[in-house]
Amino acid sequence: MGSATIFFWLQLPNVTKNYRTALTITGIVTLIATYHYIRIFNSWSEAFTVASKDGGDYTVQLTGAPFNDGYRYVDWLLTVPLLLIELILVMKLPQADTVSLSWKLGVASALMVALGYPGEIQEDLSVRWFWWCLSMIPFFYVVFTLAVGLAEATSKQPSPAAASLASAARYLTVLSWCTYPFVYMVKSVGLAGPAATMYEQVGYSLADVLAKAVFGVLIWALAAEKSAVEESGKLLPN
Amino acid sequence: MGSATIFFWLQLPNVTKNYRTALTITGIVTLIATYHYIRIFNSWSEAFTVASKDGGDYTVQLTGAPFNDGYRYVDWLLTVPLLLIELILVMKLPQADTVSLSWKLGVASALMVALGYPGEIQEDLSVRWFWWCLSMIPFFYVVFTLAVGLAEATSKQPSPAAASLASAARYLTVLSWCTYPFVYMVKSVGLAGPAATMYEQVGYSLADVLAKAVFGVLIWALAAEKSAVEESGKLLPN
Repeated sequence: MGSATIFFWLQLPNVTKNYRTALTITGIVTLIATYHYIRIFNSWSEAFTVASKDGGDYTVQLTGAPFNDGYRYVDWLLTVPLLLIELILVMKLPQADTVSLSWKLGVASALMVALGYPGEIQEDLSVRWFWWCLSMIPFFYVVFTLAVGLAEATSKQPSPAAASLASAARYLTVLSWCTYPFVYMVKSVGLAGPAATMYEQVGYSLADVLAKAVFGVLIWALAAEKSAVEESGKLLPN
Repeated sequence: MGSATIFFWLQLPNVTKNYRTALTITGIVTLIATYHYIRIFNSWSEAFTVASKDGGDYTVQLTGAPFNDGYRYVDWLLTVPLLLIELILVMKLPQADTVSLSWKLGVASALMVALGYPGEIQEDLSVRWFWWCLSMIPFFYVVFTLAVGLAEATSKQPSPAAASLASAARYLTVLSWCTYPFVYMVKSVGLAGPAATMYEQVGYSLADVLAKAVFGVLIWALAAEKSAVEESGKLLPN
């Protein structure tokens, strides 16, 4: 995540001014994630002790300190709206559409994260499902808006390469986003204990790398392609 | 590794735009390695206590905490595909070849690392050899593609100096890469205990410095040489 941030920011001079805000935000998203993953790493290390007696098999024991999953939700609350805004900005829609889409998707996605958290910290399965369902309402709104609403914007990209990158970014968002509700369900279907916690953490981490760093690379490639088209004069910047 | 990163990034303004992405990635590879070597250092320090009784000889004792060799494999999983991509980018092949080679070598090399890990954490020698053999399949594919497939690209470099640097970078990759399977075999041939662990760690660390920092210097020299040729107008940039 941290390397992705540096990569995006070092690429700022290589894109035209039109895409620098999008690329700056792309790097901020992975920076915020870097910070929270360091906190998650430390919280994880403090919650478990791995040791072997007499050089035999290693065993894992709880230290009593809690593993704090709240860092993920604070991270998502900040990064998920920013992720959507970077996608909207790189599309370079008319100003009014950019502002209205950023507000709608930003608020809906923050709501989605906020509604997921009360369920995540519950052991009661029916309460977990209740918050999962509530959270899925803004989730579907965002995914639907991306899959359908931005299709038109994709078709207006200035070159076939740009259109195919924009399309890939949209679909990667939908695909990586759909991972989260399934990972959330790991504990809701009654799995518990160390294995469930491990699957959940691995699942969320993989989805985060896809949704932030890999997605960011697509945003950068799209910005670079559109900058090249603009600079070659095939299309004048708006 | 960390110093190499800073060197590569400070050199960014001294190469033309064509080679900045390659040089940025070169610095990211050594940055990711810096991070993991700090983690390896800390894990090593936590796993062993060195102390002397009565001011006599020092003895090493296990603390019970595991030395986590997983950091190396996570490092390689990220840096090995990036290393190959920086080599491909600095060659400046046609766009379609760059994309297809990056995908093929990137995926094959990640597979190579992933297939090596299950054997590395095994004590059973036959299981170690099984994963070693599986991992060697993508290994040979990558090395063969580099040694043969990129030979043509090397001959098309814009100056004799550039051709000889490109050739050196290719052969350094093959040479440093061939170190890893031999180091892996240290424990597979039945060596065990502190000496085997030490030889393994020293071997991997030396190979990493060659494959990342020294290799990066060649990539930088090649980018600088090609930039000079382009700027002198002997060859127009695409």
